[in-house]
Amino acid sequence: MEAKKISDSETVMTQMVMPNDANPMGNLMGGNLLRWMDIVSGICAGKHTNADVVTASVDYVSFSRPINIGDVITMNATVTRAFNTSVEVFVEVFAADIKGGNNRKCNDAYFTFVGVQKNEAGEIKPIRIPPVLPLTGDEQAKYDAALRRRELRLILAGRMKPADADNLRALFDK
Amino acid sequence: MEAKKISDSETVMTQMVMPNDANPMGNLMGGNLLRWMDIVSGICAGKHTNADVVTASVDYVSFSRPINIGDVITMNATVTRAFNTSVEVFVEVFAADIKGGNNRKCNDAYFTFVGVQKNEAGEIKPIRIPPVLPLTGDEQAKYDAALRRRELRLILAGRMKPADADNLRALFDK
Amino acid sequence: MEAKKISDSETVMTQMVMPNDANPMGNLMGGNLLRWMDIVSGICAGKHTNADVVTASVDYVSFSRPINIGDVITMNATVTRAFNTSVEVFVEVFAADIKGGNNRKCNDAYFTFVGVQKNEAGEIKPIRIPPVLPLTGDEQAKYDAALRRRELRLILAGRMKPADADNLRALFDK
Amino acid sequence: MEAKKISDSETVMTQMVMPNDANPMGNLMGGNLLRWMDIVSGICAGKHTNADVVTASVDYVSFSRPINIGDVITMNATVTRAFNTSVEVFVEVFAADIKGGNNRKCNDAYFTFVGVQKNEAGEIKPIRIPPVLPLTGDEQAKYDAALRRRELRLILAGRMKPADADNLRALFDK
Amino acid sequence: MEAKKISDSETVMTQMVMPNDANPMGNLMGGNLLRWMDIVSGICAGKHTNADVVTASVDYVSFSRPINIGDVITMNATVTRAFNTSVEVFVEVFAADIKGGNNRKCNDAYFTFVGVQKNEAGEIKPIRIPPVLPLTGDEQAKYDAALRRRELRLILAGRMKPADADNLRALFDK
Amino acid sequence: MEAKKISDSETVMTQMVMPNDANPMGNLMGGNLLRWMDIVSGICAGKHTNADVVTASVDYVSFSRPINIGDVITMNATVTRAFNTSVEVFVEVFAADIKGGNNRKCNDAYFTFVGVQKNEAGEIKPIRIPPVLPLTGDEQAKYDAALRRRELRLILAGRMKPADADNLRALFDK
Repeated sequence: MEAKKISDSETVMTQMVMPNDANPMGNLMGGNLLRWMDIVSGICAGKHTNADVVTASVDYVSFSRPINIGDVITMNATVTRAFNTSVEVFVEVFAADIKGGNNRKCNDAYFTFVGVQKNEAGEIKPIRIPPVLPLTGDEQAKYDAALRRRELRLILAGRMKPADADNLRALFDK
Repeated sequence: MEAKKISDSETVMTQMVMPNDANPMGNLMGGNLLRWMDIVSGICAGKHTNADVVTASVDYVSFSRPINIGDVITMNATVTRAFNTSVEVFVEVFAADIKGGNNRKCNDAYFTFVGVQKNEAGEIKPIRIPPVLPLTGDEQAKYDAALRRRELRLILAGRMKPADADNLRALFDK
Repeated sequence: MEAKKISDSETVMTQMVMPNDANPMGNLMGGNLLRWMDIVSGICAGKHTNADVVTASVDYVSFSRPINIGDVITMNATVTRAFNTSVEVFVEVFAADIKGGNNRKCNDAYFTFVGVQKNEAGEIKPIRIPPVLPLTGDEQAKYDAALRRRELRLILAGRMKPADADNLRALFDK
Repeated sequence: MEAKKISDSETVMTQMVMPNDANPMGNLMGGNLLRWMDIVSGICAGKHTNADVVTASVDYVSFSRPINIGDVITMNATVTRAFNTSVEVFVEVFAADIKGGNNRKCNDAYFTFVGVQKNEAGEIKPIRIPPVLPLTGDEQAKYDAALRRRELRLILAGRMKPADADNLRALFDK
Repeated sequence: MEAKKISDSETVMTQMVMPNDANPMGNLMGGNLLRWMDIVSGICAGKHTNADVVTASVDYVSFSRPINIGDVITMNATVTRAFNTSVEVFVEVFAADIKGGNNRKCNDAYFTFVGVQKNEAGEIKPIRIPPVLPLTGDEQAKYDAALRRRELRLILAGRMKPADADNLRALFDK
Repeated sequence: MEAKKISDSETVMTQMVMPNDANPMGNLMGGNLLRWMDIVSGICAGKHTNADVVTASVDYVSFSRPINIGDVITMNATVTRAFNTSVEVFVEVFAADIKGGNNRKCNDAYFTFVGVQKNEAGEIKPIRIPPVLPLTGDEQAKYDAALRRRELRLILAGRMKPADADNLRALFDK
């Protein structure tokens, strides 16, 4: 399978924060932002995979800066690395008020998707995903660090012992 | 007021067509597409204007190619020309299925927005909008033709007699 | 095919403007109104056609008077004229506040729909639409002017040269 | 306070049943229909009252005929009788498929609304509602029977003993 | 068919009141509450029935205490008694503000559902529903009174004469 | 500040998966589940805190078992431990089809919320949160492990060096 460039599946989504997206204090609720991040990341993963995808996991996401009703949100999703049947997507969230002021990065996250296909019996089965071809230095750095993030996911899912996570353990050495 | 580049306010919105967006045959309903086109165009107009905007009008829109549930829609909005308190936005709609196939342009439209501001008495009043600075040939062509589209709007709104529409009448000469 | 009376397919839709339908200033967003106009017009076209319909186009729509959260909107849709496989629908929009005050006409528009049917191969194909039978003077006037609106649509869609639009060109003669 | 005609506040609402309005078998869920019936009745009550209204109660509603995705629903709401600060609204629901076939009455219900107003302290308080003026025989019959329905409501709400419900008890005499 | 315990199908639903759920005064609209009550009751009926269910009716519901935007609503649904192909569900609604204060019971209602199944011809047909096994005194009281509520429903639906409603008529004896 | 029992703020939310919540293959989209998990966790945090809360972060979430249209989802949220101005909530997700079959645990996650209050200047500021009082063995285990999860969050947010994470580093020792 031929590796594909990251820019070929980059996906941008813009949303305006509506009253129903916000809590009683007028701030965008975290769960609504997660929902949008999942959609834009899934579209990006689908473009890379040329297949239907399902969300496998989302890594730690923190919500540091409040986003208000009427703010315009721009989300940018790019694939970072593929692993057989799954692909990791990096999504960044920016907000600005409608007048274009107060431009700020709000947060980012890594979503992982599995490419799937129905077989003849109607069962949904994973399929192989094309490799990702990093071209810039930043793309290469995210590609390399994907191994470490994957180890952390396996540990958190109870499928790897911390002591076996070679890439990750190195970080904890004093 | 200083003219602003078109690329500074260009806005991209991606949407995935959900079951509720479609008619019983599974095609995206025209009205839902118009709603999304209005939102992305309004965000674009707001960025150019650095102000709140309200939709003043939308020109003729035709829906030539069906869009299906699960398709991914990409809308691209750019300002074309400003007229004192209003700005015209050109929005193009592209669709593809989630697997990235069947990429196609679906339609385009011109929306016009008025920049507004609340005055001290709480009334919403139009404000002056910065001029648009066309840089490429295509931007210049759209900029020039904006006069003709504006004449047509004035006629259709009953605010100009066809006989006075100099730019437009020329088109009808045999 | 027998012509059908306009009153047989007249359709009325009432909506109350909710917070999510409005922009940050509390005014109904133009795109939401377009969506409702498309639905009520489509239901009207479906009743006349006795078939599924898809939106083919919407003519120029202007939004002159603001509509607020809590306002009650009444939309009235009637067919005006049919052309083989398409039918034009005229929709008028009225608003009032919940207390019944500030009754006002907000805008109107012409939507065009194509009647469709799935053939045995599952393809969606246009079908013939019954003619419209105008009875009142106003119905007749809209019926007659439909030819001119249709010419303008063909020109705007790039399918007719202005010089060939006989009905329309007459308007531009000094 | 002057009595008002019933036709002055009659309200019609049309809705198309979307996938999200239906249960997994494709039938409109009862609760969604109740929500629409409440909205159209409330708009009708607001028109009669020239005031904000809140739902006080809904009488027994039965759902006898299934309504399907894609069906067009027409609801018709009229006031029947006012009682000091409340007004009873009768709402009928009709459905048809989009092709105009299978026209049928689905159900009806009586909603009661209280007219309200904020006082200077910001508290929401009931206000007097204009009497209803029945003109036709059917309007008069509904007006008269409103007393009996009101007795039943008071009993069901635990605010009247059945033995004191003179209008209602007569029905149970053998 | 074996009787089933009530606690086995008890269903709790929590909702937060969003701006779009409220009227212009900021109170939850009655119809939205009815919609949620129907969903939680239907899930409860489905658990008891182990089948798809459709709403057959809802008894008189009164809305005595206002619920505000931001309030948290807790709904509790339990079956009370089954009748061949239908089952009655009792649903209670409690509200509190997000800070946990102002805890209050808002209202309750009886919904009736019919268990259904598609037969081989694709028609939706009623099925037998397991009996309800009351265990506590309160469960037994609701079980017994279900007969009287059922008589009232039959009368209100025009399917029983008041004079034949033995359980109910006794209530009206002076 | 007095410690509060975990059972006092336990919150249960039931949802039925609607067509719009699902991807084109009919599976609940991960982002929609995240949104519901955020709402039920936030309500739980609000009950414990007796204050408004905002989402601070969500830890790694994996989606192992597909959830289908028509399935009933039950989410159970409990607080685990408070840290000055934040509180961690554990939420578990269970699904079953409407007929009560195929009961299964789908996933779980840890959300963290900050309690907030508007000060006199209208700024939203964090407030102190009551401690959590673990009573059962399982509650105590989650309470103890919260320190380790918190260290991981600080590392992932770039606010702690892995070498300083004493609780966490121990896990990686061979």
